[in-house]
Amino acid sequence: MALAVGIRGLTRSLLRPWVRVPGPARGRTEPAAGGGDGVRCFGSPRVLVEPDPAAGFAVMKMRNPPVNSLSLEFLTELLISLEKLESDKAFHAIILTSDCPGIFSAGLDLMEMCGRDPTHYAEYWKAVQELWLRFYLSHLVVISAINGVNAAGGCLLALSCDYRVLADNPKYAMGLNETLLGIIAPFWFKDTLVNTVGHRTAERALQLGLLFPPAEALQVGMVDKVVPEDQVLSAARSELAQWLAIPGHARQLTKSLMRKPTADRLLKERDADIQNFVRFISRDAIQKALRVYLEKLKQKKT
Amino acid sequence: MALAVGIRGLTRSLLRPWVRVPGPARGRTEPAAGGGDGVRCFGSPRVLVEPDPAAGFAVMKMRNPPVNSLSLEFLTELLISLEKLESDKAFHAIILTSDCPGIFSAGLDLMEMCGRDPTHYAEYWKAVQELWLRFYLSHLVVISAINGVNAAGGCLLALSCDYRVLADNPKYAMGLNETLLGIIAPFWFKDTLVNTVGHRTAERALQLGLLFPPAEALQVGMVDKVVPEDQVLSAARSELAQWLAIPGHARQLTKSLMRKPTADRLLKERDADIQNFVRFISRDAIQKALRVYLEKLKQKKT
Amino acid sequence: MALAVGIRGLTRSLLRPWVRVPGPARGRTEPAAGGGDGVRCFGSPRVLVEPDPAAGFAVMKMRNPPVNSLSLEFLTELLISLEKLESDKAFHAIILTSDCPGIFSAGLDLMEMCGRDPTHYAEYWKAVQELWLRFYLSHLVVISAINGVNAAGGCLLALSCDYRVLADNPKYAMGLNETLLGIIAPFWFKDTLVNTVGHRTAERALQLGLLFPPAEALQVGMVDKVVPEDQVLSAARSELAQWLAIPGHARQLTKSLMRKPTADRLLKERDADIQNFVRFISRDAIQKALRVYLEKLKQKKT
Repeated sequence: MALAVGIRGLTRSLLRPWVRVPGPARGRTEPAAGGGDGVRCFGSPRVLVEPDPAAGFAVMKMRNPPVNSLSLEFLTELLISLEKLESDKAFHAIILTSDCPGIFSAGLDLMEMCGRDPTHYAEYWKAVQELWLRFYLSHLVVISAINGVNAAGGCLLALSCDYRVLADNPKYAMGLNETLLGIIAPFWFKDTLVNTVGHRTAERALQLGLLFPPAEALQVGMVDKVVPEDQVLSAARSELAQWLAIPGHARQLTKSLMRKPTADRLLKERDADIQNFVRFISRDAIQKALRVYLEKLKQKKT
Repeated sequence: MALAVGIRGLTRSLLRPWVRVPGPARGRTEPAAGGGDGVRCFGSPRVLVEPDPAAGFAVMKMRNPPVNSLSLEFLTELLISLEKLESDKAFHAIILTSDCPGIFSAGLDLMEMCGRDPTHYAEYWKAVQELWLRFYLSHLVVISAINGVNAAGGCLLALSCDYRVLADNPKYAMGLNETLLGIIAPFWFKDTLVNTVGHRTAERALQLGLLFPPAEALQVGMVDKVVPEDQVLSAARSELAQWLAIPGHARQLTKSLMRKPTADRLLKERDADIQNFVRFISRDAIQKALRVYLEKLKQKKT
Repeated sequence: MALAVGIRGLTRSLLRPWVRVPGPARGRTEPAAGGGDGVRCFGSPRVLVEPDPAAGFAVMKMRNPPVNSLSLEFLTELLISLEKLESDKAFHAIILTSDCPGIFSAGLDLMEMCGRDPTHYAEYWKAVQELWLRFYLSHLVVISAINGVNAAGGCLLALSCDYRVLADNPKYAMGLNETLLGIIAPFWFKDTLVNTVGHRTAERALQLGLLFPPAEALQVGMVDKVVPEDQVLSAARSELAQWLAIPGHARQLTKSLMRKPTADRLLKERDADIQNFVRFISRDAIQKALRVYLEKLKQKKT
């Protein structure tokens, strides 16, 4: 129920939540499925969905240039695309990747956390929670084909998938680097990381805000496979075959068995977690630090 | 107390729970201890016990051909053999192995779960719980010498031991492959696997029903040692020496410190877990899937 | 509050809790910081503190010869030195190392546990708890430069640090070897080890009382880095730079996020844990075993 309310609240801010767009208009470098010709692509402005219902999956491409920052609108579109695929029985899996060259996602959108009012912070944080809950518990198989830098909230999104393929480019570092900005990963980011790489690696990585290049990400278990950059999507598709061969009902219940206790921790104190975030992000020192950081980013661009 | 009741319930179905049989009648390939001559072997029809009281341990050989399926009777004999050794102060350890060529155990007996009534399902599941609780918490050192394929419930039995030696034969894969049959490992199977290989490996292995060949089983930590096939028993014996050198009381309390919280999770909801199992296994779809699977197995044999 | 009371109780037994001593009087083999000349060293009789306020850290050298046994007085001095540095804003980090050649610490002082009265055992155990709680949760970065054998309580102290550098000398084994003496690591020793090396490695290591030589300690994750013996301190200093570059407030909160749940487990049952220890250590069999062990140690020395 919390879920339905969350989605409803979010969609209000969207003008065109789910529009059908022609495939060829999107600059794809690798076809989503087989030959690729005649594939009908659809999605929302920031989420391009390339469905392959015959094969049982869709490729979901994030395109919120320049760095796929997880703005409230972008989060909402991701959630709606996920929901759409989940409710269509033709789909059993998603491959999540980026349409922005060199970047998977830079994480949460600092613009949503700086210079706004508490009501906005609360709405934004609820959407971030929702994104994690929905991807982490999705009954679909979700495989991320990580084709670029992947930091903070973007890394969380990948950690919420069932399997992670990373492009072998030393620039494509990945991690929860919140402390570098003077902020703190919430407990459910931490839980998700601990579930993936273990307590000790998580402890060091979170304190130091480590971004792991591909070889190290593979070694600590943050990703499952590292492949040449032009094979990320095809490797994700190959891996997917193994997952789709498993009886779906048994696989879904097993996924829930593994993940529900972690998700329940947030569900039990969801409101308190929102209030914590609003209180923390509203502090003068934090707002000032974010302004300084955003100012630096702007100067870099110009 | 639950334990005593469980055992009492089980033994009713056994005609000869613990009979002394002459050693030479059993086709042993490796002697249980030292020279082997004059060793008095005893056990029940399906569990051959080769005791070496002077060395403080016994080899327990599973012989429920063709694949050591964990039928109710076989479970009961395993429990009684364990209890017998636990209550004899001469024994500090067990080496658990198989007397069936090429197979350690194929896991739970599907015949006990198909076409029977709810009372039978409940009795069977209670015995499966009991097997895990007793082996997982045994004050004896239990080392498994895994000399064959080891799937599902058989894998659980090995995971409940203190140390695992696996024969280096690429056919001898090992894992909790329940999802492949469309069924789900219960939470305490999952907990035992997580305690052994960590959360992430368990999550992937359980969803995909992975069976790990020896090299991979060693790499993910599902077993502790891989040795040539003819050295499995001798390697288990060598390892045992290290365990028997530790003051027994301190070792037992330490084992309990590590394992009791996991066992307590089942003990707290044992009845609910039985009811869950009975409800799940009684479903038409599950019964049909099991019948189809058993039919295929029969056709393979003929 | 429990903390404040603990410290107050402990200091009563100390005559000179914090005395300034001239640096050159101590036989240092490696300078604590940069050139080393003119560094003012201070500390208590058993804890030599070499501060480098300009660099933001101090080296804390344990010198309770011959083996840095954690006697009540030594524990107290360690706690007071830690508190002194924590309350001085110039310090953000500590490097913990030994001033006793070839040994980091032999662990708890058996003399405090043998032939004394229950009141003494309770006081001692409370100080041991306090040592762990204070080091494990310290807001300072604590890096251990392990330059010798490191057993039992000494190993716990190192496991409570944020990072561990171990000298590459095959004699410098490290582990929680309590079972070898017939005693049992308490649950919070266990929790700390599990958080560092995972459940399975901890289970085997604790039951067998394993002491890991450097290569194995690195492999199982008990230490983070192994370096040549003469580079332990300099490697710790290099590592420190990375930790000091992180915004302090965010790093401290993240450390607390990772460790507070583990510490809370002890805080919730601190008194029960003391009573458990007093009851266990007062048993005739345990006292006898300790006397025999201490007698052997004496004979070795003469």
